[in-house]
Amino acid sequence: MNFNIALSARIRKSPFFDKTVAEGVSLFSTYNHMYMPVSYGDRIAEYWHLINGVTMWDVAVERQVAIEGPDAEQLIQYLTPRDLKKLVVGKGKYVPICDCRGTIINDPVLLQVNQDEYWLSIADSDLLLWARAIAAEKNFKVNICEPDVSPLAVQGPKAEAVIAAFAGDWIRELGYFDFASFELEDIPLVIARSGWSKQGGFELYLCDGSKGGRLWELVREAGQPMGIVPGAPNHIERMESGLLSMGSDTDDWTNPYEVNLGKFVSLSREDDFIGKSALTIIKKNGIKRRFVGYLIAGDPYQGSSEHRWTVLDGKDKAGFVSAAAWSPRIQSNIGVGLIDQKLATPGSVVTVEGTSGTTSATVSALPFDIPAP
Amino acid sequence: MNFNIALSARIRKSPFFDKTVAEGVSLFSTYNHMYMPVSYGDRIAEYWHLINGVTMWDVAVERQVAIEGPDAEQLIQYLTPRDLKKLVVGKGKYVPICDCRGTIINDPVLLQVNQDEYWLSIADSDLLLWARAIAAEKNFKVNICEPDVSPLAVQGPKAEAVIAAFAGDWIRELGYFDFASFELEDIPLVIARSGWSKQGGFELYLCDGSKGGRLWELVREAGQPMGIVPGAPNHIERMESGLLSMGSDTDDWTNPYEVNLGKFVSLSREDDFIGKSALTIIKKNGIKRRFVGYLIAGDPYQGSSEHRWTVLDGKDKAGFVSAAAWSPRIQSNIGVGLIDQKLATPGSVVTVEGTSGTTSATVSALPFDIPAP
Repeated sequence: MNFNIALSARIRKSPFFDKTVAEGVSLFSTYNHMYMPVSYGDRIAEYWHLINGVTMWDVAVERQVAIEGPDAEQLIQYLTPRDLKKLVVGKGKYVPICDCRGTIINDPVLLQVNQDEYWLSIADSDLLLWARAIAAEKNFKVNICEPDVSPLAVQGPKAEAVIAAFAGDWIRELGYFDFASFELEDIPLVIARSGWSKQGGFELYLCDGSKGGRLWELVREAGQPMGIVPGAPNHIERMESGLLSMGSDTDDWTNPYEVNLGKFVSLSREDDFIGKSALTIIKKNGIKRRFVGYLIAGDPYQGSSEHRWTVLDGKDKAGFVSAAAWSPRIQSNIGVGLIDQKLATPGSVVTVEGTSGTTSATVSALPFDIPAP
Repeated sequence: MNFNIALSARIRKSPFFDKTVAEGVSLFSTYNHMYMPVSYGDRIAEYWHLINGVTMWDVAVERQVAIEGPDAEQLIQYLTPRDLKKLVVGKGKYVPICDCRGTIINDPVLLQVNQDEYWLSIADSDLLLWARAIAAEKNFKVNICEPDVSPLAVQGPKAEAVIAAFAGDWIRELGYFDFASFELEDIPLVIARSGWSKQGGFELYLCDGSKGGRLWELVREAGQPMGIVPGAPNHIERMESGLLSMGSDTDDWTNPYEVNLGKFVSLSREDDFIGKSALTIIKKNGIKRRFVGYLIAGDPYQGSSEHRWTVLDGKDKAGFVSAAAWSPRIQSNIGVGLIDQKLATPGSVVTVEGTSGTTSATVSALPFDIPAP
């Protein structure tokens, strides 16, 4: 089904918006109260560019929740179950954030940009409100804001060559989630080895929204020899790679253990953090559901699923498929979602109530096995 | 500019979604992580139906934050600057909610549905997270959730006749924001005299999402003699009426006094509430900006503004236009937005940097004066 998206001030345009329009963006979603490009017309072609080449994505929707001040570290530690004792400036960390019931409410990447200044590069929920509520009630001495910072992702196996072309070879030494400041012309950036794909790549955190157009042009030019094309977070690749989409794959009761993020929960920490007692009980009792892949029978899907599909075990509801599409590399329809723990073993056969009818599906481990080309 | 909207599970479909599609919905926005119908193809025709007849709107995006438990009243009172001592079951209240800086973060309608159970019918921000954060840190004994409740609005001068046709004449006695439970066939509803227009109307809070399609049909049938048509919150009418669109008209520093909501702030309350000390200082110092209307010169706009426009006083930035469109009744382009207090007097002349160039505009009081037909 095709519908237009309304443009109004309640949802914000990215600093790269005009450039994405000039490039022919055709499909938008919204994320963190902003418009997010989803496709330029051919999501399968964009998929192959990501797998084999290099693509550039307007992901300004990854807003930063900046926390600075004398109690910033204490607040950050209280917000996440992850132990951050080894955090240093210049090395990012993936930090799931839970509420006091142990439910994941966001899964940002944390960047300590200065001694007392942190950015949480957030998924799609109002973590700014959450952090401010907690800070105020705890009387933490911090300032919390959304700075003028907008990531542009460069993703794919040739991404490193693109970034090195304009920033220099030093970026080749950056480890995963490492980041550093850089000025391109007069454009202030933070360059990080990160991004929402498993094809390798970088994110350029633009620190001056007025220069979005120029940054886009410079990256486009630098990437020309590598065949860079505009793209967007790719739902097929992210499913193949088992990347979590917060709010899509998670619901109001999803805890980190269910979605394979238990390794980021440090129950042995001596200090308190939000969700600690709930997560302790959840861990003790064991999880009831798990985030898995599905290999779904039937003709290749055109496009992708529009909403959650129900997964059945016989006649009983056993979980859901939160996203589904045809995988060109696996040569099967694939999906991801939460399923009852007893069916989470790869090979379990279930029934999926998809848009085009009821079909059978086989549970798969995540990430999916990708056959050699 | 026309772009398609991506459909995926991260943004939810309303219980009325399929019906709105069958009715020919053509334009969507998103709101509270859901798809919101914005138009069925002719927003001017929808405007006239709202002004002269009756329209039905899928506003399931007005999610409810339900708070129940022994400390529910205490939490509600702590969340809003409004004094709720006179709150009773069955009478709704408009309750702006601020953070500790005095910034408006949501402006819900509060419904006390039972002695210890409240619904906040929210605007577009994650108030569920906010309320849970506050409740947990304050150790309030409450349960907070988003129940299966989805409003359907019936708006326009003939709305009362439509609701009375299926619910009975008792609804004619409901005062503004009054509400009561009702069963239509086996569909559990709360019927309230409310809605985001000044043309009169009701909201039907559907309390069982599985029955959205049937409710739509029943309202459509009941409204047939009155000429009901599908519609949506109408940006032209809301500007004419001076209704606030949180997140569009407000920014990260907008306090209730700036947007004419000072009457809902009870600084004389003896109990504490979030933002009390900040709002006390803001009130004492006086506001720097005000929410006003603009009569904007030039040819009639086709469509509406896509993003905020800058308002200039000479060469100095003096505010913004957060929404603008042609008003068929005023026979002028109109807009709303925040402007420097010194220019907030009706009649002030400013410059607007609109999409189609720079034009002059005259500040107007809100609501706008509507010429007699």
